[in-house]
Amino acid sequence: MAGSMGQDSLGQETLDLVDRWWRAANYLSLGQIYLRSNPLLREPLAADHTKSRLLGHWGTTPGLNFVYAHLNRVIRRDQQEMLFVAGPGHGGPAVVANAWLEGTYSEIYGQVGPDEAGMAELFRQFSYPGGIPSHAAPETPGSISEGGELGYALAHAYGSVFDNPQLITAVVIGDGEAETGPLAASWHSHNFLDPAADGAVLPILHLNGYKIANPTILARMPQEQLEQLLRGYGHEPYFVTVEDPDNTEQAHRDFAAALNNCLAGIRAIQGSRRARAEGVGGNADDGGTAAGAPGSGAAPHWPMIVLRSPKGWTGPRIVDGLQVEGTWRSHQVPLAEVRTNGAHLKQLEEWLKSYRPEELFDADGRLRPDVATNAPTGNLRMSATPHANGGLLRTPLRLPAYAAHAVDIAAPGTERISPMITLGSWIRDVISLNMENFRLFGPDETASNRLQAVYEVTDKVWQYRIDDVDEHLARSGRVLEVLSEHLCQGWLEGYLLSGRHGVFSCYEAFIHIVDSMFNQHAKWLKVHRKLPWRQPVASLNYLLSSHVWQQDHNGFSHQDPGFIDHAVNKKAEVIRVYLPPDVNTLLSVMEHCLASTDYVNIVVSGKQPSPTWLGPADAANHCRRGLGIWEFAGSEVPGEDPDVVLACAGDVPTVETVAAAELLKWGIPGLKVRVVNVVDLMRLQDVSEHPHGLPASDFDGIFTPDKPIIFAYHGYPSLIHRLAYRRTNQDGLHVRGYKEEGTTTTPFDMAMLNGIDRFQLAIDAIDRVPGLAEKHSLLRQDLQDRRIQARAHTRTHGEDPEEIRKWTLMAQKESG
Amino acid sequence: MAGSMGQDSLGQETLDLVDRWWRAANYLSLGQIYLRSNPLLREPLAADHTKSRLLGHWGTTPGLNFVYAHLNRVIRRDQQEMLFVAGPGHGGPAVVANAWLEGTYSEIYGQVGPDEAGMAELFRQFSYPGGIPSHAAPETPGSISEGGELGYALAHAYGSVFDNPQLITAVVIGDGEAETGPLAASWHSHNFLDPAADGAVLPILHLNGYKIANPTILARMPQEQLEQLLRGYGHEPYFVTVEDPDNTEQAHRDFAAALNNCLAGIRAIQGSRRARAEGVGGNADDGGTAAGAPGSGAAPHWPMIVLRSPKGWTGPRIVDGLQVEGTWRSHQVPLAEVRTNGAHLKQLEEWLKSYRPEELFDADGRLRPDVATNAPTGNLRMSATPHANGGLLRTPLRLPAYAAHAVDIAAPGTERISPMITLGSWIRDVISLNMENFRLFGPDETASNRLQAVYEVTDKVWQYRIDDVDEHLARSGRVLEVLSEHLCQGWLEGYLLSGRHGVFSCYEAFIHIVDSMFNQHAKWLKVHRKLPWRQPVASLNYLLSSHVWQQDHNGFSHQDPGFIDHAVNKKAEVIRVYLPPDVNTLLSVMEHCLASTDYVNIVVSGKQPSPTWLGPADAANHCRRGLGIWEFAGSEVPGEDPDVVLACAGDVPTVETVAAAELLKWGIPGLKVRVVNVVDLMRLQDVSEHPHGLPASDFDGIFTPDKPIIFAYHGYPSLIHRLAYRRTNQDGLHVRGYKEEGTTTTPFDMAMLNGIDRFQLAIDAIDRVPGLAEKHSLLRQDLQDRRIQARAHTRTHGEDPEEIRKWTLMAQKESG
Ligand SMILES: Cc1ncc(C[n+]2csc(CCOP(=O)(O)OP(=O)(O)O)c2C)c(N)n1
Ligand SMILES: Cc1ncc(C[n+]2csc(CCOP(=O)(O)OP(=O)(O)O)c2C)c(N)n1
Ligand SMILES: [Mg+2]
Ligand SMILES: [Mg+2]
Repeated sequence: MAGSMGQDSLGQETLDLVDRWWRAANYLSLGQIYLRSNPLLREPLAADHTKSRLLGHWGTTPGLNFVYAHLNRVIRRDQQEMLFVAGPGHGGPAVVANAWLEGTYSEIYGQVGPDEAGMAELFRQFSYPGGIPSHAAPETPGSISEGGELGYALAHAYGSVFDNPQLITAVVIGDGEAETGPLAASWHSHNFLDPAADGAVLPILHLNGYKIANPTILARMPQEQLEQLLRGYGHEPYFVTVEDPDNTEQAHRDFAAALNNCLAGIRAIQGSRRARAEGVGGNADDGGTAAGAPGSGAAPHWPMIVLRSPKGWTGPRIVDGLQVEGTWRSHQVPLAEVRTNGAHLKQLEEWLKSYRPEELFDADGRLRPDVATNAPTGNLRMSATPHANGGLLRTPLRLPAYAAHAVDIAAPGTERISPMITLGSWIRDVISLNMENFRLFGPDETASNRLQAVYEVTDKVWQYRIDDVDEHLARSGRVLEVLSEHLCQGWLEGYLLSGRHGVFSCYEAFIHIVDSMFNQHAKWLKVHRKLPWRQPVASLNYLLSSHVWQQDHNGFSHQDPGFIDHAVNKKAEVIRVYLPPDVNTLLSVMEHCLASTDYVNIVVSGKQPSPTWLGPADAANHCRRGLGIWEFAGSEVPGEDPDVVLACAGDVPTVETVAAAELLKWGIPGLKVRVVNVVDLMRLQDVSEHPHGLPASDFDGIFTPDKPIIFAYHGYPSLIHRLAYRRTNQDGLHVRGYKEEGTTTTPFDMAMLNGIDRFQLAIDAIDRVPGLAEKHSLLRQDLQDRRIQARAHTRTHGEDPEEIRKWTLMAQKESG
Repeated sequence: MAGSMGQDSLGQETLDLVDRWWRAANYLSLGQIYLRSNPLLREPLAADHTKSRLLGHWGTTPGLNFVYAHLNRVIRRDQQEMLFVAGPGHGGPAVVANAWLEGTYSEIYGQVGPDEAGMAELFRQFSYPGGIPSHAAPETPGSISEGGELGYALAHAYGSVFDNPQLITAVVIGDGEAETGPLAASWHSHNFLDPAADGAVLPILHLNGYKIANPTILARMPQEQLEQLLRGYGHEPYFVTVEDPDNTEQAHRDFAAALNNCLAGIRAIQGSRRARAEGVGGNADDGGTAAGAPGSGAAPHWPMIVLRSPKGWTGPRIVDGLQVEGTWRSHQVPLAEVRTNGAHLKQLEEWLKSYRPEELFDADGRLRPDVATNAPTGNLRMSATPHANGGLLRTPLRLPAYAAHAVDIAAPGTERISPMITLGSWIRDVISLNMENFRLFGPDETASNRLQAVYEVTDKVWQYRIDDVDEHLARSGRVLEVLSEHLCQGWLEGYLLSGRHGVFSCYEAFIHIVDSMFNQHAKWLKVHRKLPWRQPVASLNYLLSSHVWQQDHNGFSHQDPGFIDHAVNKKAEVIRVYLPPDVNTLLSVMEHCLASTDYVNIVVSGKQPSPTWLGPADAANHCRRGLGIWEFAGSEVPGEDPDVVLACAGDVPTVETVAAAELLKWGIPGLKVRVVNVVDLMRLQDVSEHPHGLPASDFDGIFTPDKPIIFAYHGYPSLIHRLAYRRTNQDGLHVRGYKEEGTTTTPFDMAMLNGIDRFQLAIDAIDRVPGLAEKHSLLRQDLQDRRIQARAHTRTHGEDPEEIRKWTLMAQKESG
């Protein structure tokens, strides 16, 4: 039947089919919210057929179902690959209902079969203890976006279509959701979309007029203003307005026409750009100099739909004398008292029957074959698309050997190099080898973070005007830069969940902007990992630079190492944190991260030139172990207990620790100092708490069960205590780290302000190793004086003393 | 001279004055970035007159100075109160320069006098160790917005004008900044602004074309599209385009004209709305039904300015053969090598001289009197406005006695009530008593969080169409609801820093959305508190409800108690965390918070009916202590050591703990159980770490030095370990809390999933009190069975067993 339809058939029969699908989905959605038995209403509805707790969101649901039913029509017609993103993910009943109608649900979850028993289970399990969540969660086939925390739908949608030229992602945006910052920023995403090589996003702004308890801004602004706004966003809006909720026929006709127009519009844009990209119709790079009209060479105005329909459409119009359909009162459960209020129960029964289930399901509770024909087949079903189960499509990155980039060293700590510059050259090669499934995302900081080598092989995407003076901007490229951490994160999430790879490079302090998005992604991964039908996706890799200790042009507001603390609250199996101390360890860590799946990897590295401690082979070993004793830096005697352990994690703390060990070595000959560097922070936890955790015996061996440990840490000190909690020697652990002291000052002054400088660390050792304080009071005093001098030097000269700035392990040794 | 100017004088003389001010500000900005001596160029510029580290951002600075100079003209002309918000706060040199020119800087900071020595110090201190930050920080007179983390300027600006009818806040928005989510959402803020009772915001979108390393979206989209976008936001844009950077005269004329138009436009809107509000010109509440034209009754289109000017305007055009002025290359320090490259040094000298300092400063380095006349006087100076030092204007809230709302109880834990509903009635009374300086902010959740009693005395502000079906919407009101946590936070910050009071009520999980904004505010407060000239502002109060343990309609994505963890990384002197266990303690805590200053208070409370434990007087004492032993819940014998301490913090954990104590009491007669409830979480820290910390001896007395402590905590368990770190009995501390387990399920199932349920806590006690495990194996088994039964009940009935749902302390006792 599908095959027999003409290209633009909006015949009665087709729309009637769409309508039946819609009614079926609405019926199933309602059943999920209310019913725990009697799914087909074989008996008169009784109170105890209903659930004791009525949990879910009806208001958004009929709109989602309406859109879904219509999308199916065009998918079938055009054999178009589509992905569905439900911005208002609280409309979980809708996405689940459609997945069941398409058969996917029963294929994945055998206990929820395509018949009456399955329908009963479908209803029972929803928002039910031991059942499924109320939102478009990982458990939901076809979903890449939970929509629990609102605002990320449009960014996710864009992420899914980058490098997917054949895909159109339809995204329903709630009018409430549209008020959020991340969503508001997302409208500009098409400036980063290459019509030739990427797919398309079809935004469907769902103006159902309300959010939880209020009207929405976009629904209430004058129509003319809304039109200006959407055009201002660079869209060509098609409006579908449901004037009369009962005239669903008109609504179907209008929406189908709008959808046809949008698909035609998308193909027109793609067609002309793709032709030009192939050199058929002119210069692919002529866009954007003239005003906005499509075809004039300006960035295209992508079509979109505005659906104005009543919230809770087809639900009860009036309940207890108050208007419900078309108001915020339909947001959750319009009839709240069906168990105790006979009138409510009656109204629910009428409401269920209004969908005429007997026309939709057969005697066995199966979807009638005629209605079923509205579903596309196989992977074209949006609930079954592999783009929403990206692990199915993911191919591992081809990773260049990093040996070619690694830095050979004559001796540890004698040369300075910017780890990020070198990493940039390796990432450049990663890009060269993976031009279609790897991207670098950043809030205008890729060069600031010193990764500029990537521009030797690729560009930053930009569709608006490109001027002569611009560098590395082009219509297509592997780098996406926008001044929105939310967009970087949202795009990357969509890109990963649809099967690709990427890195988000960001200032360390400002990654907190996406704390909450990170939460949602980490939660997603936790659940996703347990679902056998979901295949592993590439890890989300954060590369945090311009970190707390190196804020040249900036100050206190840019100093915050707390993202790590935030992240470790999430499930241990998902979180990995790396603090490579130098360039070679950074390379090794990044290679590991880019090859991994289903994690969130956090890598923190400074961009300023800093000492290289380990040659390539040692670095690889060090990273494999995750931590290690640095013999070259310490002064212990093999076979004997050390007197003190100086431990460190993070590049700047490592420099200070090695320098402190050197101060102690020369100042207190015979003192046995052990230096331990930690790359993989999770090694500090016990193996029972984290898969990377170090067994107790290893930990005791390295950190000793009873000697003082002076630990210089990159971030807030409490995290080290937390991780090393209940280690044998936790009482011996003394941690230095960032304590919210600082401003615009020199790097060494920052270290001093927070007490992680070499002098303080050496003093700490003197104070904590029994017996030293008395014997080495003079040294202690000297260290204090040098500290004071170092500070005074910054005040006079505006920079750190040369002995600090240019310090290397060798130089110091010679002068020592 | 100011007095003699006509209303719209744009005469040559006036604009020349503005130009001289601009040049002076540019000169001083440049001096701050580059010079450490020779401020007036008395000698030929030499390398060692310049700073060794050149730190700061030039690119945005001339634009900020340009705007500031022009604003001064109209302030003087109209004696208009204005506040200046620099979105690109990295233009710190500009705001500092203007404050110095206005004399404010020298008034506040005596060492930076208004003469040559002062100028030298002004230059030296900038971005210098021991000096001042590079941004518009708390140290900067006239600033309420650091602008270090970009995106909050416009929200801050709106916050400052609510309930300030006489104020206009001019806010410069960077075109890069405009790409951020929070900024993009902020454009709609005027829908929440009452032209009659609030002041006005004048946005000045600064299209200097670039951010750090890229062009900006708004600068590159076609002009026509930009116009649509800004009109779509509800603004009437006035464009000022600097075609020829050398023709500054034209630029001045154009900007002055635009500014005149904007001020006239603002006054027209305010005039008509205020007249109507006073009943002069019609119905104040007729807005918004017709289309957007001003005066037609629709929401007004507020004027704004778009300033298209070259980034780094007036700076070096070409450096080393590359274009700098008008490109991203001018973002930071255009001439980077003045110390080592003679050509750079020469170019810097020419650049400095291009401002003709001799026309601007006299022989003593003082601003020439004629130039100085461009400054307004006294508090009209934007650098001196009390609106930017809100503590000067703050009047304490009039707080109603909460006794009238407190709940009397017959016995502890016998009645259930929703604490939030009762709190709502108290907040209603707070509102009634403070109709002009208190607001409630929320992301569409005020009613969902059960504070609906406030609508008995006030409404939610809304300027677009209001329909008959709407409830509690009006043109003015005390409640601001928008689906953007960023806006709630940004508005509230602006409102507080300009001297008023407020509460932000939010779902607990989603407050992470503003983690980073919270960071910036907490950092602001830390610095602000140390500045003697800044007066205390009201605390920022978070009221977090719909918390992790009570997610009826929602699931995993809505379960996150980690905001507390995030907050405690900030300076202890700023952070307060309260977990009131019941209604009376909630009232007491909120009263305390609303009376406090310079803190961030975090209050977490459930909205579901829950037991009341303490009568009003006991609750007040409990809160004053911050924690306490609950004799009624335990079974200890005065004068004897308890066998075990059951501690709790948070409402749900408290219920489970009291119930667990009861289980133990009946199950193991003679067992001495102490129950401790913690309201003020910071009490757990040592007094050396937090001002609220409990002295060691008190802690040891309450928690015992050696008995097992079973601590049921609202959030992630590690926080309790962290806070109680190094307490004598920390090894005896066993914490239960949220461990990222959960989904859409019943409340008690959530407790069980995370192991904080009563049965588990009782089992924990049995396992940890020496000797119990053997003797009470049967009880232990029985508790396990009851746990399994409770879970099974949820699976069968979809809700918790009645004995759990309806549990009260009394009922249990009788049946026990
Ligand atoms: C960031 C965020 N803040 C608050 C909420 C609470 N919330 C759940 S649904 C909803 C209203 C959504 O309105 P809209 O986007 O219009 O969806 P619809 O009307 O289709 O239900 C709100 C505020 C949320 N889910 N996410
Ligand atoms: C949220 C955030 N992300 C990134 C940065 C880093 N950053 C500092 S300045 C800047 C560019 C700002 O551009 P724009 O707003 O146009 O200001 P202007 O051009 O006037 O300097 C960026 C990205 C930041 N400060 N804040
Ligand atoms: Mg809506
Ligand atoms: Mg800019």
